[in-house]
Amino acid sequence: MQIGMMGLGRMGANMVRRLMRDGHQCVVYDINPASVAALVKDGAIGAASMEEFVGKLTKPRSAWLMLPAAITGKIADQVAALMEPGDIVIDGGNSYYHDAVDQAAELAAKGINYVDVGTSGGVWGLERGYCLMIGGPDEAVRHLDPIFATLAPGADAGANPAKDGGTAPFGYLHCGPSGAGHFVKMVHNGIEYGVMAAYAEGMNILKSANAGKRQRTADAETSPLENPQYYQFDIDLAQVAEVWRHGSVIGSWLLDLTAGALKSDSALTQFGGRVSDSGEGRWTLKAAIDTGVPAPVLSSALFDRFSSQGESEFADKLLSAMRYAFGGHVEKPKAGS
Amino acid sequence: MQIGMMGLGRMGANMVRRLMRDGHQCVVYDINPASVAALVKDGAIGAASMEEFVGKLTKPRSAWLMLPAAITGKIADQVAALMEPGDIVIDGGNSYYHDAVDQAAELAAKGINYVDVGTSGGVWGLERGYCLMIGGPDEAVRHLDPIFATLAPGADAGANPAKDGGTAPFGYLHCGPSGAGHFVKMVHNGIEYGVMAAYAEGMNILKSANAGKRQRTADAETSPLENPQYYQFDIDLAQVAEVWRHGSVIGSWLLDLTAGALKSDSALTQFGGRVSDSGEGRWTLKAAIDTGVPAPVLSSALFDRFSSQGESEFADKLLSAMRYAFGGHVEKPKAGS
Amino acid sequence: MQIGMMGLGRMGANMVRRLMRDGHQCVVYDINPASVAALVKDGAIGAASMEEFVGKLTKPRSAWLMLPAAITGKIADQVAALMEPGDIVIDGGNSYYHDAVDQAAELAAKGINYVDVGTSGGVWGLERGYCLMIGGPDEAVRHLDPIFATLAPGADAGANPAKDGGTAPFGYLHCGPSGAGHFVKMVHNGIEYGVMAAYAEGMNILKSANAGKRQRTADAETSPLENPQYYQFDIDLAQVAEVWRHGSVIGSWLLDLTAGALKSDSALTQFGGRVSDSGEGRWTLKAAIDTGVPAPVLSSALFDRFSSQGESEFADKLLSAMRYAFGGHVEKPKAGS
Amino acid sequence: MQIGMMGLGRMGANMVRRLMRDGHQCVVYDINPASVAALVKDGAIGAASMEEFVGKLTKPRSAWLMLPAAITGKIADQVAALMEPGDIVIDGGNSYYHDAVDQAAELAAKGINYVDVGTSGGVWGLERGYCLMIGGPDEAVRHLDPIFATLAPGADAGANPAKDGGTAPFGYLHCGPSGAGHFVKMVHNGIEYGVMAAYAEGMNILKSANAGKRQRTADAETSPLENPQYYQFDIDLAQVAEVWRHGSVIGSWLLDLTAGALKSDSALTQFGGRVSDSGEGRWTLKAAIDTGVPAPVLSSALFDRFSSQGESEFADKLLSAMRYAFGGHVEKPKAGS
Repeated sequence: MQIGMMGLGRMGANMVRRLMRDGHQCVVYDINPASVAALVKDGAIGAASMEEFVGKLTKPRSAWLMLPAAITGKIADQVAALMEPGDIVIDGGNSYYHDAVDQAAELAAKGINYVDVGTSGGVWGLERGYCLMIGGPDEAVRHLDPIFATLAPGADAGANPAKDGGTAPFGYLHCGPSGAGHFVKMVHNGIEYGVMAAYAEGMNILKSANAGKRQRTADAETSPLENPQYYQFDIDLAQVAEVWRHGSVIGSWLLDLTAGALKSDSALTQFGGRVSDSGEGRWTLKAAIDTGVPAPVLSSALFDRFSSQGESEFADKLLSAMRYAFGGHVEKPKAGS
Repeated sequence: MQIGMMGLGRMGANMVRRLMRDGHQCVVYDINPASVAALVKDGAIGAASMEEFVGKLTKPRSAWLMLPAAITGKIADQVAALMEPGDIVIDGGNSYYHDAVDQAAELAAKGINYVDVGTSGGVWGLERGYCLMIGGPDEAVRHLDPIFATLAPGADAGANPAKDGGTAPFGYLHCGPSGAGHFVKMVHNGIEYGVMAAYAEGMNILKSANAGKRQRTADAETSPLENPQYYQFDIDLAQVAEVWRHGSVIGSWLLDLTAGALKSDSALTQFGGRVSDSGEGRWTLKAAIDTGVPAPVLSSALFDRFSSQGESEFADKLLSAMRYAFGGHVEKPKAGS
Repeated sequence: MQIGMMGLGRMGANMVRRLMRDGHQCVVYDINPASVAALVKDGAIGAASMEEFVGKLTKPRSAWLMLPAAITGKIADQVAALMEPGDIVIDGGNSYYHDAVDQAAELAAKGINYVDVGTSGGVWGLERGYCLMIGGPDEAVRHLDPIFATLAPGADAGANPAKDGGTAPFGYLHCGPSGAGHFVKMVHNGIEYGVMAAYAEGMNILKSANAGKRQRTADAETSPLENPQYYQFDIDLAQVAEVWRHGSVIGSWLLDLTAGALKSDSALTQFGGRVSDSGEGRWTLKAAIDTGVPAPVLSSALFDRFSSQGESEFADKLLSAMRYAFGGHVEKPKAGS
Repeated sequence: MQIGMMGLGRMGANMVRRLMRDGHQCVVYDINPASVAALVKDGAIGAASMEEFVGKLTKPRSAWLMLPAAITGKIADQVAALMEPGDIVIDGGNSYYHDAVDQAAELAAKGINYVDVGTSGGVWGLERGYCLMIGGPDEAVRHLDPIFATLAPGADAGANPAKDGGTAPFGYLHCGPSGAGHFVKMVHNGIEYGVMAAYAEGMNILKSANAGKRQRTADAETSPLENPQYYQFDIDLAQVAEVWRHGSVIGSWLLDLTAGALKSDSALTQFGGRVSDSGEGRWTLKAAIDTGVPAPVLSSALFDRFSSQGESEFADKLLSAMRYAFGGHVEKPKAGS
């Protein structure tokens, strides 16, 4: 079937390619003409303006936006202004689900369908398929089913047969009304932060398994290592990550990636340790707080990222100031300074 | 080759079966004669006493203990007393790695090799293979290689080729000297707690996505839900777990199990929510504390288990007592009481 | 000077009493006529309706609202509708500072001043004085200075002389424009949760100092206590709380209250351990998340309260379900069931 | 009465001064003769060797050790070797209570009493008095009562009358058998870490109350601030700390010190933010883990200190490596680099 794609960055362009491979017709637009031209060469129908983009879509029009969260709302309004009742706007970006709920209500008043699609899979999606978490009106979601079926990975040997013949085993799911897709994707990313941190902390402990071999400063500001004889192991982190991939309880795709990263450079020298966060982890915690659900693991993972961004510095200075005030403790210099 | 197995519970018996399937000769012993008899029927060589067990082993003798942690040390000493220099005692249980370090040193003085093998795979290991994390003297570990190769899953399509021709892609790894195997297995379980908690917290948030539909008590002791319009989703947890298995970033074996559990009963009515912990998670944190490594996610996961066991009750009573003392706040009754 | 007080619950009524003691004239109103009558008997000027209340105030009128957060916004609008430019509405409740920012902007358009006052001190404020955190336009705050000076504790021996002759050493502070008062009070309560939890956790550890004396179940689902000889202490919690009040680093008013509560009943039998939270702790965390500030301690304290309210149950059931799925672990019954 | 003091650092020397002021006779020894000479000038009886030190003590001898934890055990053995049954060794340092339990048992076999005294008060103790948490045999502790009474702050107006005429309101407490004193002091410090972190996190949030005024990078690796209008406050942290000291719920001695530190330099420029930890916080958590008591707040506080020491770096690098692997996310440079 036909689909329009606006926003031809890495994600959008790869999704167009995966769709065309499977025989779908793609109308494409981006503010960067070169991005349009590259896909036209591969068989897509290009558009030079938003108006042309909408004009080339056949009714009911389906326009998939793959844009930065910061501008998605505004562009969705502009596209919708060019559409007619029964048409469909799809937001496949990492938007806040609050915005999806609000925007869906606005567009519904004009008879336009808003479908939000949380999309997981990253740079691997072109080959591996994208996991799609979908929110929106039943009819519109049903109409887009061939598109979702192509973008998703499709069934594999390990899929649980769906109890009701549903689509989850194929890697896409209609989660509920507008906003539900972004909500489920948001929680997915919240979990992702927690799982990543669990591996990272564990690997950090393994890395310290030789602490008993290292010379340790003996001063009042350094806590002694009581039993150095138990910390004499030089663990090969890359090999441990690899062995855990085979038969252990903690096998996962993130572990696969971890093993790959450690294998190419076990000291991870190309990274400095400043870990970004991109909204979903924060929103997940706000949802937990709103609904009174304990989320100590997910919040610990998020707050560690904030710390890695330097945001605990003032708090730490205050702790040193208190220690100096009550005990005369003079701060040790920071490592490396 | 030949191997002795002492302790024929679920784990030990299944490991014997997997070994015999691959042509190894197994001498087996357990204080329960019926457990011995069952395996003899399947082709094992039975022993009626520890002496007979050791007597039937050919030199260099290899005795694998698959026993509860609480008795492993004592039994290992008894077996070693019947052995000769060059023989090998293998501890495949969930022992504390401190004990492995200590016991290895004791047995080394008598010329006996101590090999510790952290074993992951649970009830699935018979078919799927066991992930083996091994500590001990080089020669002894090399001698046992055919045994490890059989117990482990073996290579599959996704395995990273080992950079040095090592065994990690086959699911077993010599991690270092005695104690290193239990150390790596300990951290594996610490990570396991964190990963499990990440999924559990996320699912709990998804379950509360309909909080805006529920009637909410309006009193000074209940925090209001400010934006109920954003919490109107009835999420099908089983289907979400299933869809995440296909192409998402958080796919894992634990997610596979989660999807299966939610599919058979999405309300999990057969469980009450008392989560046990079995030592490794605690030891992981002690190692983090000893070496000064931050582990906020792993500790949050462990402490949640303690809370589920009722151990936060006194602390919570004290919080209520303080609130009553400064603000006259009267505690609300506990749900269900 | 004259002040109007609307909302004569425990807090409002006590504040009126403290103001009248110091010679201020108080016009009072409440939907409950008995509350009005009680204060009229003590010297206040009563009003039988909101209109009468506003009518009895002299210009520029100052109306202090001491109402539940849920209705404050609506009542503030109603009062403001009866006022004239230059008049002042004061919100002394536990409102969300977002609402204060928004409402101040609305009222400013009509020339009416909005002053938000975070008020700490609880049931002790009548005698001890209230700590006041104030937001609002400079002139309005200056106009109310005599009221704030009376409500606040006033200087004591320990006060740091203000560097700029400010009012902080007297227990009240103009923190910034409208909203700043509630913001600072919000963070105050966030800290309060963290401090309370620190004491509660520590006391819980002290209470377990005799764990080595207790019989311990020896099964695979119970982690053993390795060194029972180190857990043989029966600590008198009430006396420890008392001794810490004198010369220790952790002396505080909350510790004073803790010592009092433990002295009257060291088992805290009148409490069940369901700890309410009332908004500020949640909002504090949302502010931390918005601004990217790590707050692991404050969030841990909040999430423990959620858990005490039963909200971790589903997550814990899911953990048990996973343990059963991978290891065949059968959940132990909950204590008391 | 007479007491011997060995170890004349800041703590030991000040304690001798406080004791002499109250009329006690002090025999003093230190490996640094100048430290001995300084106190002799103030009226103490000096000793030039451990033998002379013990020789000058009258029976039953009482030798108080105020030494670094790392050497306390060894020196205690040496002193005890010069003593006779009925004599008393007192450890007033920050030793691990496990060592106290073990050493007390050893010395008891020789008839020598071991008394452990957790001492809080820091550099303020000389004037303010020391809070003393005492473990040891009843008779020995009773014998030392005049010493404890002098070192402790003594009763003040706010002390709760002890229910059994005990000493807690005077600032010292016999907590139980040998080890109980260090145990209670250990938990005291664990709580201290948590309380400090609660203030530090809260102050850090207040400091970010103007985040809406700051220019914010708009890229995919920076989470946007959704509602900048709510983060327009420039909060004066020093004044807020001061106002909270007067009538608020979170008044405390640590807040007093915080207010003082912020008043002298609200940017805390003399500190870098590397926060040391000195054993007790770690041991507190190990006790919590051993006994299965949840301590999420205390552990968060400890782990933040570890992070401030640079120990989360490898974990954070691994998180960046995973983000790069699944999403192609390139790490942003660290602030300041």
